[in-house]
Amino acid sequence: MAQNTRYDILFEPVAIGPVTAKNRFYQVPHCSGTGHLRPQAHAAMRAMKAEGGWGVVCNEETEIHPSSDLSPYVENRLWDERDIPALRLMTDAVHEHGSLAGIELVHNGNHTYNLFSRAPALAVNDMSVSFGWPKQARAMDKSDIKELRRWHKQAALRSKEAGFDIVYVYAGHGMTLAQQFLLPEYNNRTDEYGGSLENRTRLIRELLEDTKEAVGDSCGVAFRFAVDELKGADGMQAEEEGRAVVELLAELPDLWDVNVSDWSNDSSTSRFNLEEGYQTQYTEFVKTVTSKPVVAVGRFTSPDMMVSLVKRKAVDFIGAARPSIADPFLPKKIEEDRIEEIRECIGCNICVSCDGMSIPIRCTQNPTMGEEWRRGWHPEFIRPKQSEQSALVVGSGPAGLECSMQLARRGYHVTLAEAADTLGGRVSAESNLKGLSAWSRVRDYRQQDLQQRGNVDIFTGSELSAEQVVELGIQNVFLATGAVWRRDGVGRSSRKPLPGVESAKVFTMEDIVSGVQMPSGPIVIYDDEQGYLGGVLADHLSSAGHEVIIVTPGSVVSAWTAYTLEQERIQTLLLKQGVKIIANHSISSVSDDNVTVSCVFTGKKMEIPCAGLLLVTERTRRTELYQSLIALKESGNKEAQPFNFELIGDALAPGLIADAVYSGHLAAQNFEEDPAEIERALFQRELPSLSIER
Amino acid sequence: MAQNTRYDILFEPVAIGPVTAKNRFYQVPHCSGTGHLRPQAHAAMRAMKAEGGWGVVCNEETEIHPSSDLSPYVENRLWDERDIPALRLMTDAVHEHGSLAGIELVHNGNHTYNLFSRAPALAVNDMSVSFGWPKQARAMDKSDIKELRRWHKQAALRSKEAGFDIVYVYAGHGMTLAQQFLLPEYNNRTDEYGGSLENRTRLIRELLEDTKEAVGDSCGVAFRFAVDELKGADGMQAEEEGRAVVELLAELPDLWDVNVSDWSNDSSTSRFNLEEGYQTQYTEFVKTVTSKPVVAVGRFTSPDMMVSLVKRKAVDFIGAARPSIADPFLPKKIEEDRIEEIRECIGCNICVSCDGMSIPIRCTQNPTMGEEWRRGWHPEFIRPKQSEQSALVVGSGPAGLECSMQLARRGYHVTLAEAADTLGGRVSAESNLKGLSAWSRVRDYRQQDLQQRGNVDIFTGSELSAEQVVELGIQNVFLATGAVWRRDGVGRSSRKPLPGVESAKVFTMEDIVSGVQMPSGPIVIYDDEQGYLGGVLADHLSSAGHEVIIVTPGSVVSAWTAYTLEQERIQTLLLKQGVKIIANHSISSVSDDNVTVSCVFTGKKMEIPCAGLLLVTERTRRTELYQSLIALKESGNKEAQPFNFELIGDALAPGLIADAVYSGHLAAQNFEEDPAEIERALFQRELPSLSIER
Repeated sequence: MAQNTRYDILFEPVAIGPVTAKNRFYQVPHCSGTGHLRPQAHAAMRAMKAEGGWGVVCNEETEIHPSSDLSPYVENRLWDERDIPALRLMTDAVHEHGSLAGIELVHNGNHTYNLFSRAPALAVNDMSVSFGWPKQARAMDKSDIKELRRWHKQAALRSKEAGFDIVYVYAGHGMTLAQQFLLPEYNNRTDEYGGSLENRTRLIRELLEDTKEAVGDSCGVAFRFAVDELKGADGMQAEEEGRAVVELLAELPDLWDVNVSDWSNDSSTSRFNLEEGYQTQYTEFVKTVTSKPVVAVGRFTSPDMMVSLVKRKAVDFIGAARPSIADPFLPKKIEEDRIEEIRECIGCNICVSCDGMSIPIRCTQNPTMGEEWRRGWHPEFIRPKQSEQSALVVGSGPAGLECSMQLARRGYHVTLAEAADTLGGRVSAESNLKGLSAWSRVRDYRQQDLQQRGNVDIFTGSELSAEQVVELGIQNVFLATGAVWRRDGVGRSSRKPLPGVESAKVFTMEDIVSGVQMPSGPIVIYDDEQGYLGGVLADHLSSAGHEVIIVTPGSVVSAWTAYTLEQERIQTLLLKQGVKIIANHSISSVSDDNVTVSCVFTGKKMEIPCAGLLLVTERTRRTELYQSLIALKESGNKEAQPFNFELIGDALAPGLIADAVYSGHLAAQNFEEDPAEIERALFQRELPSLSIER
Repeated sequence: MAQNTRYDILFEPVAIGPVTAKNRFYQVPHCSGTGHLRPQAHAAMRAMKAEGGWGVVCNEETEIHPSSDLSPYVENRLWDERDIPALRLMTDAVHEHGSLAGIELVHNGNHTYNLFSRAPALAVNDMSVSFGWPKQARAMDKSDIKELRRWHKQAALRSKEAGFDIVYVYAGHGMTLAQQFLLPEYNNRTDEYGGSLENRTRLIRELLEDTKEAVGDSCGVAFRFAVDELKGADGMQAEEEGRAVVELLAELPDLWDVNVSDWSNDSSTSRFNLEEGYQTQYTEFVKTVTSKPVVAVGRFTSPDMMVSLVKRKAVDFIGAARPSIADPFLPKKIEEDRIEEIRECIGCNICVSCDGMSIPIRCTQNPTMGEEWRRGWHPEFIRPKQSEQSALVVGSGPAGLECSMQLARRGYHVTLAEAADTLGGRVSAESNLKGLSAWSRVRDYRQQDLQQRGNVDIFTGSELSAEQVVELGIQNVFLATGAVWRRDGVGRSSRKPLPGVESAKVFTMEDIVSGVQMPSGPIVIYDDEQGYLGGVLADHLSSAGHEVIIVTPGSVVSAWTAYTLEQERIQTLLLKQGVKIIANHSISSVSDDNVTVSCVFTGKKMEIPCAGLLLVTERTRRTELYQSLIALKESGNKEAQPFNFELIGDALAPGLIADAVYSGHLAAQNFEEDPAEIERALFQRELPSLSIER
């Protein structure tokens, strides 16, 4: 039971078929970029969720056969019994904390390339594989369907053997064969698996029945189902076939795990869905149709909303992927009535981006995410101080705040000096831009933590010179002095300043957030970086009434945001707002009221009107203080001799906010650490076995 | 010595510092998509080259430190001593065949994201990482350079411990830190590592000296260097600084491995450089400057050209990556004067595409490539027949030809029936298109092989009905009946036929190669597939004088060809030829002389003129014969009962030509194979060790 009785309802046990979750906190399956390649890292990450109080902890998409080979993406794998030991690492670790472990079995149909296994791809009908590879899947015949059922059943049995308590059938995210069979857009079969809804649901029913028959005696059988595709009448709708499917299968699964499709809708960012609970309108009907427990998601971080959802019978379980990544200890903090300590997800999808790059999951808010095994990091505990040293942190952007907070948590006395009048650095700046307001949580969480500690002195409006640093007499200095956007156009496309830039009306992100008056007439944004910022600024300025032209050497705007599932939305939004997009072009020169752009393919030039040029090309690290401290030390200044100082965050290497937080965390962790241990952690990795038999 | 004395010169031993290669055949480093993830597959693949007679077999880019972490790309890795056992698998296997093993050590500078290691990226100056990730590398200071040298030296020592005979310093392909230091475009340092050529070469010299000092007593030290960037005066030129670098360092390395940069220039496809030896004009000066042996590349497959190159002192070693992939036994075949048996590389870069997808290497010509460990396949030997069964192969496209040839090599009697008057199927068709003529080698190699065998009957102009198949009385039937391009517009963008398509003037690839008269006026190519074919057809038709408009839902033309390093060239070529590219649009309807296209982001429509619509959307499998045989069997026809028949190639699942060849090969390998062994091979894979210590 919770320390605050208003949350008691969240800590009631709930049965899922033959198993019982100890509470209502349910980490739904989510990818992690560790999967079958990094089973120890995967197990340690999931175990942390269990330790943090999640009653159910699921894994991620788990391929059941070589014909559902998601390579190069790294998910879980249960092709045969050889995969059981790796998965058992997770279930054992989750069980240690009294939680249930769930496994999301999947065949991905034409959503797989099978590029590793080289097996022919399978689909409900003949059709191309879903991504840009010139390859087609073949329609499954009856014997293929029979085989598929056999594979799924074998995988269920192996799941049980691996120790899982909950076994999934999965029809969602626009990614799975079961969903393709269901959707008339894909299914034009003329046999008993096509046509009527009942026919299109047949495969799902069979998979559910097979799974129950195989493992239903001891495992809960969950059905993950996207009730709405958010395509209106062109797709599944919650109030049409979405409901009909739930009605047809209502009591068959032991648990309904419901959401919206595709993945970009389910994992919508705060930029496009600011408020938590954005899926509830689609999913809340499910509980009215079935007596089985229901789990649903919506980036929930507010305990009061959770309580309300359960009380008004919208859900039985509070589902979470991203909030459990940002704070694995969210349930424990609610249980112990430490609500203000919850590290809330900012909805940035950095976690999601890792899946697309097949790298271990990370999180802007929680720098320990994905580092549980490699570095032994814990989101709540950090090694106490080793001495009575104190530390000075210069700069309160994401790196400075995180470094200060972690050093303070270790027990060191921390002095945090910020040149500006408010804390947050680039986080404060960027969260002033349209769509990014939730990012301020990165600052708020840390600022609140720091302000409550007795061993932290915070000084704002305090720009420090090297001499002042030395005068302070604090011998360990962390320079989180950040970076500023270049005003000369140097970047990936050109290592030289743009001709004419010195006399042009040039602006950067810093000008926009500080409210500099923009000229009237077309504002040209040059997005040579191709991250998120160029598109954000285009949205920000065009929403404020400016005429905006965005020039990018990329083929689309904000190309990188494909990894955060935002690119299509951004380009659509900008086009609808009338932003002119000039893709595949770099800027070759600038004049008073024009820029000349050049086709990246042919070099062909054209002039476009430009009243003001907003450059998003590259950033300059602010290392002046660092250089001055080096100079002071090298000059033989006696007082400067004992000083240790290092750059962290963007001042060390500009990157994402997540990188800066990580850099600050790493510096705090490594402070007074044995160099051998620091090196060990940097080199740590999982390796292939060399003794696999042929 | 060779059986034909004219090739003797190719089999002379050549010293590389303290080691000696047994002949002049040198497999230069090339990526394989196996790398550190799949060390057993990697070792077996390299060993096959050694068995095939390559005197030197190198590995691939080998990361020397976590700050050169190429994830998600899978190359070799030598971060510390824990990587030695995996690499030793390769050196032991290569040594077994009397060949030398080389290792290409590398630090990639800002060409790495370090997304796994999360180490800050390093570069010659502050600059963005080279790909589309919002992240910057920091300029290396003196202590960074000192550390880099230490890492490189340690890696050299570990290379020796792992059994390598040749250790590389690598400055090429637009990918390495050493090259970035060299190029004034990137290097604007003001210290002794910047400015003059001597200064910019300093790091390379130091790395070479360090490596010689560390391992030069027993290992050859090679320098891989891109002498020309093919950017004219904007970059390194062979006759300018390229030569000057060779002059500066002439006698320092034990071997010069020279090529052109970037990778797309070095690995140019036959579509853009048809003839072998396309790099010689840039690299041949090197031997006039240094007394050390020189290896150079250029997709060499002709023994006479090889002899000529050595005789006229253009090279000492015949370097090869792709020709050694297409035919690992190229040296042996020359040695044994079996020239006509050489399986020549077609220059399609399917091998290269695997690196971009982090999947094991494959080859259009050599379906055993990458399968040496997993399936135990050998490019020259195949298990003999198990019985006196005979086989009928219907269709002589890539799958049918390969299947026939391998069955015949196994000793079965093979009847090959082709409906058309000539062999080759889609290979013959596509190689008629502009730029693809070298692809006919896929047909020619197999046709020549088949025609020389006594156990093969080939019938052209022989379309078979199910009844005729049964009448033939050959009980094992392989249906390689291929696929045809759809004429209704169904594909990724729409699962329904395009409105109006039935009455429009529609064409497909098959029409173009069969010489159908195209209408005058604009030809609209709808490339919904986004593979290579749409761009090839645009080139083909526009070169023939047609006005061409290419519409694609992709953001660029032939988006997939980024994986074969061709996309930029294709788009440049088409734009220069006046082809109009309408990217980010799908076709929503068709009328007599217009098509209506629709923006994939906003749905906004526009009409474009269209005299003829050439559809590249999806293919329909030709399974009529297969269906008829099933029907015949199910009807109870007694003569049909003993028949075994299966689909192979595009008729099973349309894909690349490489996929079809592989499918035909697999069917021949699996014929009369134990089903358990077939399944074992399908499920075979390398797995992570579960006992890595934290």
